[in-house]
Amino acid sequence: MCAPGCLETVHNRLDRRAFFKGAGATAAAGVMAAAYPPKPAAAQTRSFERVVDMTHTLSPEFPTYFNRPGIEMERMTAIADDGFNMYRWSVIEHAGTHLDAPIHFSRGDQHTAEQIPAEQLVAPLCVIDIKARAADNPDARLTPDDIKAWEAQHGPIPDGAAVAMNSGWDQYAQTEKFAGRDADGRMHFPGVHGEATQYLLEETGAQGLMVDTLSLDYGLSTSFDTHYAWLPSNRWGLENLRNLDQVPASGATVVVGAPKIADATGGPTRVFALV
Amino acid sequence: MCAPGCLETVHNRLDRRAFFKGAGATAAAGVMAAAYPPKPAAAQTRSFERVVDMTHTLSPEFPTYFNRPGIEMERMTAIADDGFNMYRWSVIEHAGTHLDAPIHFSRGDQHTAEQIPAEQLVAPLCVIDIKARAADNPDARLTPDDIKAWEAQHGPIPDGAAVAMNSGWDQYAQTEKFAGRDADGRMHFPGVHGEATQYLLEETGAQGLMVDTLSLDYGLSTSFDTHYAWLPSNRWGLENLRNLDQVPASGATVVVGAPKIADATGGPTRVFALV
Ligand SMILES: [Zn+2]
Ligand SMILES: [Zn+2]
Repeated sequence: MCAPGCLETVHNRLDRRAFFKGAGATAAAGVMAAAYPPKPAAAQTRSFERVVDMTHTLSPEFPTYFNRPGIEMERMTAIADDGFNMYRWSVIEHAGTHLDAPIHFSRGDQHTAEQIPAEQLVAPLCVIDIKARAADNPDARLTPDDIKAWEAQHGPIPDGAAVAMNSGWDQYAQTEKFAGRDADGRMHFPGVHGEATQYLLEETGAQGLMVDTLSLDYGLSTSFDTHYAWLPSNRWGLENLRNLDQVPASGATVVVGAPKIADATGGPTRVFALV
Repeated sequence: MCAPGCLETVHNRLDRRAFFKGAGATAAAGVMAAAYPPKPAAAQTRSFERVVDMTHTLSPEFPTYFNRPGIEMERMTAIADDGFNMYRWSVIEHAGTHLDAPIHFSRGDQHTAEQIPAEQLVAPLCVIDIKARAADNPDARLTPDDIKAWEAQHGPIPDGAAVAMNSGWDQYAQTEKFAGRDADGRMHFPGVHGEATQYLLEETGAQGLMVDTLSLDYGLSTSFDTHYAWLPSNRWGLENLRNLDQVPASGATVVVGAPKIADATGGPTRVFALV
């Protein structure tokens, strides 16, 4: 279990009321998972010409939601002494550019990281830009209208898609603004509105939801509507994405190099866009 | 540094004579790196229709070269108590299907894991089959003749290629045969002969070398000829690959989801073939 005091921030935020609201959402999502299963991407030839790295470098300095180092490294061998170099990592699953496996916010038998089918991790990439609104308001959220505007321009979100929120936040990854903690310890960064998540579940066959910030839910959230609706439907999430400005809004393929580690609830993930 | 006794197996195997031979190979490889830099893959449209997962699931039971668990997981939160599930991992970089970054066996400024350019991690995949020989002899090695035979059939190894040895060993991953430890503690599994590694360095523009066994060098090796020639030339390696029987010998693209972790000498890696 957790060392004493290690997750005080989250526990403070996820108060009893919010927790029971979350639990209710989970139960509802159990029904929803049956009603709206993720749809596989259509079988078709996909092609690309270049690779865009969508991954931040994880180090002990990279900001985490939990306001503590996401990784510590211990040297096990050094080439001068042992003939080769090797480290051991102590790493929190939800650090750096990382996967949220369905089980992260689920009470049932939803997928752990290694159970997500490989075909779900190579997906049509849809990038929805809310940079202009987020520039004026760090508490901005991706809404159903944003998705509808994207669809009006690019056509319906394809089955099996990974939908990414581009808030422009990756540029702040090395600064205090990335988490945006205020004097009261509340965070301010963009995320996905619960209504947008419902829209994706009910109106599209998307199977992945990606953000360029620390959490699928915006920084101020205490009810985690998006986490509690999306993940229990057996869909995956991805946080701290990078370089969304370097890929088209539609037409690229994202490859999510999720950790294939037994029982994992997520983990640091290499993400490439094939453009 | 390493806990007392933790790497006795490797230290026993890498004796002084072998170590100095290794150091000599490293110095030679320093020259070689300048003489034979990795070549980028030709810019061209690549296409695919399906995804093959080439990754074993890492768990504490998965065999390691070091004969100790590659990962331990500690539960940090549980959904019933905390509203969500999360673990911390303690993981050895060289466990499971994993990257060998150039720095793993190098003394200079060769690439750490996060420094390998993304374009080098999406590569033309060349699969060289030595299953028939390995079935008769667990000490079998990939030789220059094996590479030449592949080239006679499929054409020259392309620039930027990832060359994979298919020894059929992935089928033994859950058994004692995978490491093949004998009564004296020596291991018996196939690997890449040092002469094959020299051939790849001198005659091809390959940039990745992959095996379906615990080590680029075969299990009996004490001089680690392949590690000490290949990695210091600033090329990457990949060990414990899976499902090489499900991809063609030529024409697929491999995506190596290497960890983007600062200073890492390697690490658990999700690998997909795009076929
Ligand atoms: Zn997360
Ligand atoms: Zn290794």
